[in-house]
This record gives sequence, C-alpha cells and structure tokens, in this order.
Amino acid sequence: MDTPKGLGVDAERLFRSLSDLAAAVLDRAGSPELAGVGVGCGGPMRWPEGRVSPLNIPAWRDFPLRARLIERFPGQPVRVHNDAVCAAVGEHWRGAGHGHAAMLGMVVSTGVGGGLILGGQLVDGPTGNAGHIGHVVVDPDGPPCGCGGVGCLEAIARGPALVVWALERGWRPQRARQATGQPTARDLADDARTGDPIGRAALERAGRALGLALAAATALCDLDLVIVGGGLSQAGPLLLVPLEETLRRHTRLDFARRVGVQPAALGQQAGLVGAAALVHAGTRYWHGD
Amino acid sequence: MDTPKGLGVDAERLFRSLSDLAAAVLDRAGSPELAGVGVGCGGPMRWPEGRVSPLNIPAWRDFPLRARLIERFPGQPVRVHNDAVCAAVGEHWRGAGHGHAAMLGMVVSTGVGGGLILGGQLVDGPTGNAGHIGHVVVDPDGPPCGCGGVGCLEAIARGPALVVWALERGWRPQRARQATGQPTARDLADDARTGDPIGRAALERAGRALGLALAAATALCDLDLVIVGGGLSQAGPLLLVPLEETLRRHTRLDFARRVGVQPAALGQQAGLVGAAALVHAGTRYWHGD
Repeated sequence: MDTPKGLGVDAERLFRSLSDLAAAVLDRAGSPELAGVGVGCGGPMRWPEGRVSPLNIPAWRDFPLRARLIERFPGQPVRVHNDAVCAAVGEHWRGAGHGHAAMLGMVVSTGVGGGLILGGQLVDGPTGNAGHIGHVVVDPDGPPCGCGGVGCLEAIARGPALVVWALERGWRPQRARQATGQPTARDLADDARTGDPIGRAALERAGRALGLALAAATALCDLDLVIVGGGLSQAGPLLLVPLEETLRRHTRLDFARRVGVQPAALGQQAGLVGAAALVHAGTRYWHGD
Repeated sequence: MDTPKGLGVDAERLFRSLSDLAAAVLDRAGSPELAGVGVGCGGPMRWPEGRVSPLNIPAWRDFPLRARLIERFPGQPVRVHNDAVCAAVGEHWRGAGHGHAAMLGMVVSTGVGGGLILGGQLVDGPTGNAGHIGHVVVDPDGPPCGCGGVGCLEAIARGPALVVWALERGWRPQRARQATGQPTARDLADDARTGDPIGRAALERAGRALGLALAAATALCDLDLVIVGGGLSQAGPLLLVPLEETLRRHTRLDFARRVGVQPAALGQQAGLVGAAALVHAGTRYWHGD
C-alpha cells in the first residue's frame, strides 16, 4: 500500500497504536456515546488544523493528526491543541485556576510551556501559539535556546538545562545510576533537597528565571494568578521560593502585586482534563473553528 | 462651598477648566448631538470606575473623573481608559493596526506604556491594566524604576532616562538651551542624528531594551504586529534599527517570526482617536460595564 507523500511508515504505525489504544479504552468503558475527541499534543503544530510536529515524537512531522482522528471518529467534533495549553485549560476548568479571569498556567519540565486565560477564555492567538512563556527572554546574554534564540526562559529552566548546568559545575549525582541512566532533573532536585549546593544553586537559578518571566507576563496581561506545574515544579520550595522572591521584586505596581502563584492541582492529569475541556467547555476553551 | 473630602481646590479648578474646554469645543462645533464621552487619561486609575491619579497631574489624586463627567454630561455614555491604551486602540481602529487580530500598540515617551489587542478586541485585564509593556523586566540588574522595581523597560527607555544616562556619560548638548531648559530626549535624538556618539549609544541601548520586551510580548501573546509611537519613536532608525535587530535575534520560533513592527500612523492624535473609539466602537474596545 502506498504511504501518502511525506508520511513515513513510522508515522502510520504510531497512529495505529493510538487508534488501537482509543478502541481499547472505549471498549473497557462499555462503548459509551462520545461527546467528541479532545487531544493535547506536543508542539509545534499548525492550529487549528492540528498538523503536528512534536519535538519529542520524531515519527510525526507535519502529521495531520486532527484530520486522521476525524476519519477515525466520523461525526464527532475533534479538537487538538498544544499540550501545555491543555494543561493550563485543565487547571482553569477543574483545578487551581477555577474562577480566575486572568491566569497563566505553565508547565516546567523537559520544556517550558504555558497557556493563557484572559477574560475567563483561553487566548489562542492567531496561530494558536499564545502562552509561549518559555521563550520570554530572561537573560539576553544567556545560553542558546533550542528555538534558535538566546537566553529564553526555557534555555535556563528546562530540566535538562539544569542538569547540564550542574554537571558543568561539578555536580556528582548521589543516587546510584541505572546502567544506562543519565542523571535527570529529578535526581538533581533530590540531591538539592539533601543539601547538595550545586543542586540548590541550579534550582535557585531556574526559580529566578521563572520569576522574571512571570513578572513580564503579569505586567503585560494584568494576571490574577500563575499556576506552576510539570515535573520540575515537584522540586517545591527550592524552586518556588526564589521564583516568588524574584516575582515580588519585579512586580511593584499596585495592580501587579495581587498576582498569586499556585502549584498545579491536577498534576499529570491536567493535560487530559484540559483536552476534555476543549470538547466539554468549548465556548471558553475552543475557538478553533 | 465645601470641597468633597479628599479633593483639593486644585482638583476642582482643573475639572472646571476641562469642563469649560469641552463646552467651548462643543459650541464651536455647533452643539452637535453627542454619541458619548470618551477619555484617555494618564494612569494609574481605578478601572472601570475611572478614578484617576495621573503621575503627571498631581492635582488629581483618586479623582472621580468618570463620575464627574457623568454628572456633567447626563444621559451620555462616559468611558475612561488609560491614555496609552487609547493610543493603541486608536491605531487599531483607524491607524497602522487596522484589521490585525493580535497587536501591541506602545507609546515611548516620558513613560513607556501600551495597549493589547487580541482576537481583534481590546484586552483590559481584570483591573484595566493589561498592556503595561513598560514594566517588563529587560535587565534584572538594571536601574531602579519609578514603579519601585528594577530593570523595567521604562527605567531604561523612557526619554528622561536616556537623557540622564547620556549626561552621566559626558553628553554635551549641542543645541543652545533656553535659559531654563533642561536638555530633553528630543535634543539627544537631534544630537545623535548629527553623529553624537553618546546620543547614538543611548538610543541604541533603548532600542535593544524595547526589542527584548517586544520579543517577550510576541512569544506570550502570539502577536501579528507591534506599533511604536510616542515622542521618542520620532528618533527613527537610530532607535528602530537596534529594536528590530534585537527583536529578530530573540523571536526565532516560526510563529513569532511573522511579527511586524510599524511606526504609529496617527501621531499625537492616536489617543484622541482611541478615546472616540471607546464610544463609537465599544463592542471591540470597551468592556468596562
């Protein structure tokens, strides 16, 4: 069988796995009537078309995920958005952001992403890319970023960047590594918690960078609330205290002082809950078509 | 006659001047039927109440401008917003931003302010303070800002800050000063245009700071367009070339590259046009009540 131009076998195999998984889940749930299909997927993507090129899924490059799901689930609304946007939506719909008019939900993990809620509605932006807090510049002379820029928040505060920074400064991971294991940001956070000074400095540096970017977002968008989730946010006070200190130092106008910082309430489920909200609360969270 | 508590005689005198001016303008126009009253006023203010405390009008502190105008023009819609917001609205309604879905209009002058349009609508923010691009941090170790923070764009790129920076570095203004005159940012720009190296460096520094803040706004809000107005923007390429260079260096994601930078089309009229738009195009620009 011919593969459509530009789509490799891997892309098809991956979609079939996804499709089989969906079938199994629906079967196990007793084949309920569907309200629709909501998907959070790694970016970048063409939005609202839902042609996805997730950085961490090399098999899909410009893969027409939304179109293929429409074929797979005929007659259903199918809505695809960025995974960090979905996490923000999940927190606004059912999590720590419920009822807030103006919030930024962010995910600090392998990357640094986010989603923006203003006037109680998801802000998509003309290309679906609003909320890219990870590419706010926090140090113009800082490290190069995967985006091709310099000194972006993501280049400093993403987990792998912390690990590199710490190893360069002589961090010796405490925990015995698995045979193939590279040390992770979680290992670094664990070591920081037991007093490793390089680990603590790495988290403090990331926290300060986050605080600067959040101060910018607060001034620009008149935010009520910032929600911080993602793996690295599990580091807790070692990350969040310098974040708060920096944010407070740089948000001094009366209106900006009110901004609150909350940890994500839904944990790893936030993205799934947000994907559901694209369908179940589309008037607030889906303006794609 | 008693003055209401908290309002000095100066506040009343100033309001009477405003009221007399409005009467004279209406009279000269042949007493037309009004559609309403739109006002752009310096911030900060309580919004949408329109209680104003303009930094540059000490006579008004928490002055109930909107309420007083409602008394003065009974039965009319009266709408008051930040002057930089009105300038952005003016450019979107009738100027360089017409038809753009996502733009930031900014004013670089004695202060640095702005207004944010997303989805073709003015974004107010819960307290009416969205668009405060002047308080995006561009240099965490930079100069103190009037807001109480450190390293804000405004602390670096407002006209008077350029003058101070240049004088500290030995700038000797070329143009003969008037007896009482302090050198202004316009003098500095004039000298830069004729080759003064300190003047050029001051404008370049401001341009770079603007570029960094605009890169942040572009990533966060998925902007199509930035419009730069205000007195300092008259400095032209000496300001705008380093602005563009810095913006391009830091906006590398595909979606962000599309952002354009345009000079304001309406000049000093932008704020007035925008104040009119609060009334004449209220569905897009007024969500205050």
